[in-house]
Amino acid sequence: MFIPKIYKSEDEELMKEIISENAFALLISDKEKLSATHSMFLVNENEGNFYLETHLSKANFQAEVLKDGDEVLCDFLGANSYISSSWYDHKNVSTWNYEAVQIRGKVKLMNDDELYEHLRKLTFKYEKPQKCPMFVENMGDEYVRKEMKGAFGINIIPNEIHIVSKLSQNRDEKNTENIIQNLSETNDSGALKIAEKMMKYLKITKQNI
Amino acid sequence: MFIPKIYKSEDEELMKEIISENAFALLISDKEKLSATHSMFLVNENEGNFYLETHLSKANFQAEVLKDGDEVLCDFLGANSYISSSWYDHKNVSTWNYEAVQIRGKVKLMNDDELYEHLRKLTFKYEKPQKCPMFVENMGDEYVRKEMKGAFGINIIPNEIHIVSKLSQNRDEKNTENIIQNLSETNDSGALKIAEKMMKYLKITKQNI
Repeated sequence: MFIPKIYKSEDEELMKEIISENAFALLISDKEKLSATHSMFLVNENEGNFYLETHLSKANFQAEVLKDGDEVLCDFLGANSYISSSWYDHKNVSTWNYEAVQIRGKVKLMNDDELYEHLRKLTFKYEKPQKCPMFVENMGDEYVRKEMKGAFGINIIPNEIHIVSKLSQNRDEKNTENIIQNLSETNDSGALKIAEKMMKYLKITKQNI
Repeated sequence: MFIPKIYKSEDEELMKEIISENAFALLISDKEKLSATHSMFLVNENEGNFYLETHLSKANFQAEVLKDGDEVLCDFLGANSYISSSWYDHKNVSTWNYEAVQIRGKVKLMNDDELYEHLRKLTFKYEKPQKCPMFVENMGDEYVRKEMKGAFGINIIPNEIHIVSKLSQNRDEKNTENIIQNLSETNDSGALKIAEKMMKYLKITKQNI
């Protein structure tokens, strides 16, 4: 991934937000062959250390080959939308605005207790807002341990983190406002999210002038 | 990517729909190092041959290293949503429903005329619905050829295509209807799309009984 400087972010809070809101993301590896699996990720911060957690089916090729220390790439694509050059007051090319996080890291296999805790936290995150939440703690230890036998849990210890926030930062205020206006007129959820993020960015820029 | 049999699709129309509607997708390669770039894809069908087209910035690492014949993996994630086990009438684990396409293929670099045609078609796709479309043809040949100098265009000739349509096909009618009902009550665009797709699947299944 190439990130021009103006679209590069160092904002850790933004990174965690992108991961948390787009946690059904991609685990990529090239051990034996180029492979990628959509899986559910969690951010873990333990005593100041930040890492990712995920799990795959044991029937997955990546679960067969990945071992401690292997390198993987995790890709989280956030809000994104086409940006039409017809919204500019000058000639230029159309583009795509987006937020994304890529984390390159080393695999560390989970033991049974870590996998249990991972599934407990993951389930808690998504069950909490439900009408009648079904938490792991309420499913019975024996049942959960049995289900766990089919799962392959890994931690990913980051050694490279890239945060992209491409929000037309190369446009002036007038053009930025026009892009926001056009995005806001659609009913596309990605376009509306990008409009909201561009608005926020514009406000911060104005405050800093 | 591991796809249990019940979630595997052979539906070419579904594949083209997933790619077309989620065309800001991921180009993955492992030449020299594991790399992935979000880029805009197009499906091309030329005299019965199906392949993908995309372009990157020439400043991108993948643009530096990828040559004719190199293997890449392209990942298109479609509609997706968390499925809570609290919506089932029996004990089971929560999951994630989704549609996705993965295409493994060989790189074929575009020449200048192919890149021009790729940008023309890509722009046409997204400009056509705009109020005042800005087509490549109207930007002036000299301007477009100048802009093209920064772009690296590739075709990807598929040798493996995987289509996932994971829509709770392992649940009975009553549970499926309950999942659809719960998804429909949210205002999450992914959940609503999955509900719609599950509804369509349920209707087809009923017709076939």
